[in-house]
Amino acid sequence: MAADLSGAPAAPAAAAAGTPAFLAACQRQPTSHRPVWIMRQAGRYLPEYRALRARVDFEALTRTPELAAEVTLQPLRRFPLDAAILFSDIMTPLQGMGVEITFAPGPVVRDPIRSEAQIEALPQLVPQRDVPFVLKTVELVRAGLPQGVPLIGFAGAPFTLLCYLVCGKPSKEFAPARSFLYQQPQAAQRLLTHLADAMAQYLAAQAAAGAQALMLFESWAGLLGPREYRQFALPAVRRVMASLRAAGVPLIYYMNQGSALTSAVADLDADVIGVDWRSDLAQVRKELGAGKAVQGNLDPAALFAAPQELRRHVDAVLAAAGDAPGHIFNLGHGIWPDTDPDAVARLVDYVHERRQS
Amino acid sequence: MAADLSGAPAAPAAAAAGTPAFLAACQRQPTSHRPVWIMRQAGRYLPEYRALRARVDFEALTRTPELAAEVTLQPLRRFPLDAAILFSDIMTPLQGMGVEITFAPGPVVRDPIRSEAQIEALPQLVPQRDVPFVLKTVELVRAGLPQGVPLIGFAGAPFTLLCYLVCGKPSKEFAPARSFLYQQPQAAQRLLTHLADAMAQYLAAQAAAGAQALMLFESWAGLLGPREYRQFALPAVRRVMASLRAAGVPLIYYMNQGSALTSAVADLDADVIGVDWRSDLAQVRKELGAGKAVQGNLDPAALFAAPQELRRHVDAVLAAAGDAPGHIFNLGHGIWPDTDPDAVARLVDYVHERRQS
Repeated sequence: MAADLSGAPAAPAAAAAGTPAFLAACQRQPTSHRPVWIMRQAGRYLPEYRALRARVDFEALTRTPELAAEVTLQPLRRFPLDAAILFSDIMTPLQGMGVEITFAPGPVVRDPIRSEAQIEALPQLVPQRDVPFVLKTVELVRAGLPQGVPLIGFAGAPFTLLCYLVCGKPSKEFAPARSFLYQQPQAAQRLLTHLADAMAQYLAAQAAAGAQALMLFESWAGLLGPREYRQFALPAVRRVMASLRAAGVPLIYYMNQGSALTSAVADLDADVIGVDWRSDLAQVRKELGAGKAVQGNLDPAALFAAPQELRRHVDAVLAAAGDAPGHIFNLGHGIWPDTDPDAVARLVDYVHERRQS
Repeated sequence: MAADLSGAPAAPAAAAAGTPAFLAACQRQPTSHRPVWIMRQAGRYLPEYRALRARVDFEALTRTPELAAEVTLQPLRRFPLDAAILFSDIMTPLQGMGVEITFAPGPVVRDPIRSEAQIEALPQLVPQRDVPFVLKTVELVRAGLPQGVPLIGFAGAPFTLLCYLVCGKPSKEFAPARSFLYQQPQAAQRLLTHLADAMAQYLAAQAAAGAQALMLFESWAGLLGPREYRQFALPAVRRVMASLRAAGVPLIYYMNQGSALTSAVADLDADVIGVDWRSDLAQVRKELGAGKAVQGNLDPAALFAAPQELRRHVDAVLAAAGDAPGHIFNLGHGIWPDTDPDAVARLVDYVHERRQS
């Protein structure tokens, strides 16, 4: 079923002819239209996703290539999106490394990792052996996608994974993870290095399986002040990115709540910085300079505005992004489960329509 | 019991002689030492607070002037802090306005406010009638504090209160509050104006009862992008501040997660901007200019570092704050309940010691 996209909406003119608009924008090349995709576009706001989830639990969905591919492709059947993103979970490779994790619904780590001994004992990830179903999903999705729509592979950034591993469960403050950095800075560095190497392996395998861009999600960047970010999170991200350059695909780094961290990533070797909705996109582009593309950053809450108002909010994002090449339209955070899919349709159409050249 | 501070630690030299260091720093005047206090300094990390809470529930503590005064004074007996802050809850005045709220332990509003009719029906706050116990607490604390230690009164900022009132309970994303702004912007404005007027009344009454500085807590500033912040949250804060100028005491505005909002508050009529731990204090001072004092911004997690390391983190905050007058040392967010009080003692002593003139 994953391969049937016969009813898919048509991509805007010219996109199919050359480099897909999404990949061109990643490289800061001019595009015939403004590419757009949506964080968590495969997920709960879609009735067809909820219908599948009513039959199959979340983990089974992520571990069954045919189902994960189906979920990945669902939003592409509804909307003329410019990219697909692999349906998976940032904890999946950690489970592949033998960490026992359940979902309730957020990830719960059975034995939170807080000692040097636990870090030493963590095996390295061998994607083909440990998460073959993810690589198979990538292959199925590629086979099912029209040529002009690239597939983005992804992983959690090392510090974000550390937050879950140390705390054991999601929390507002992630206090145990933050005090871990201050109490055991060397153990934290060791864990981050290990996670960086594992995620580099994981993403390289996704690219080898067919992913045409790779994205690292730093969901918890905003827990750190600039000094701690530069000391802990950033070196681990650099390590992943340096390893991935050989993959030859665009590299995207999304920072949630990273308003104070923009200057810290200005010289990161990534092609695209994903920007959350709290940041001023014009300011971010200025701070990053001409060497980076940006992705974002409409407030997910704006999809609840009346249609005319939604257009006004889209206009504001486009105005802040400016006319220089290298902007991929997206939300500034994942789409909310109670979003009306019709609002998404209006959003995608309006972005395309507003920025035809 | 509230009035007995005979065992209180001595304030640093010279503080008692003229204007207390905290008040001088609020006005950007030179001080003999760097003033320091700690957000949530009266609370769960103190064994004597926990002992009291074992006997009395949270709401009763906030509503019984003798007990609220006792809790306010507890940290002052242990540490030579430069200010006291009223022990209360940001929801207390809303309860005074007739909103039914329980604590579980976060505030839960029985009937979340989402309609024009509910907003119209909200009564105005008359502090002397609706929350007399708060004003009595202020009087008792003033009577119990040594002269050199001023008392800070406080309230929740209008947008932060809106978040609780619309959502009904705390949540990570406060999604219903954020979609409310986009769906019903005029109703949101009306609610914010009402809350601004109520908090202005509430804070003015605290000043009349003896509070020597007034602080507005914008705990959820970071839910908003700069445009929505300027449209909704900021005008309501301006309205409170304009009304409070007549009180003749320093006005403090704390923004949690406000890294992208600094320039928006540069011309706000407040004396002090409270800065969360994610922001670079040097950058914030630069953006705010010479007309504002700043308060902050050590990461609460830094109190878990080894003593030598804690000093290094304090040094970094002091270096970022610079030598210009107008810095009040504080954490960048409330102290965590599992913090060791001995770490607080070391922190306060080190700040005083490092910045004696």
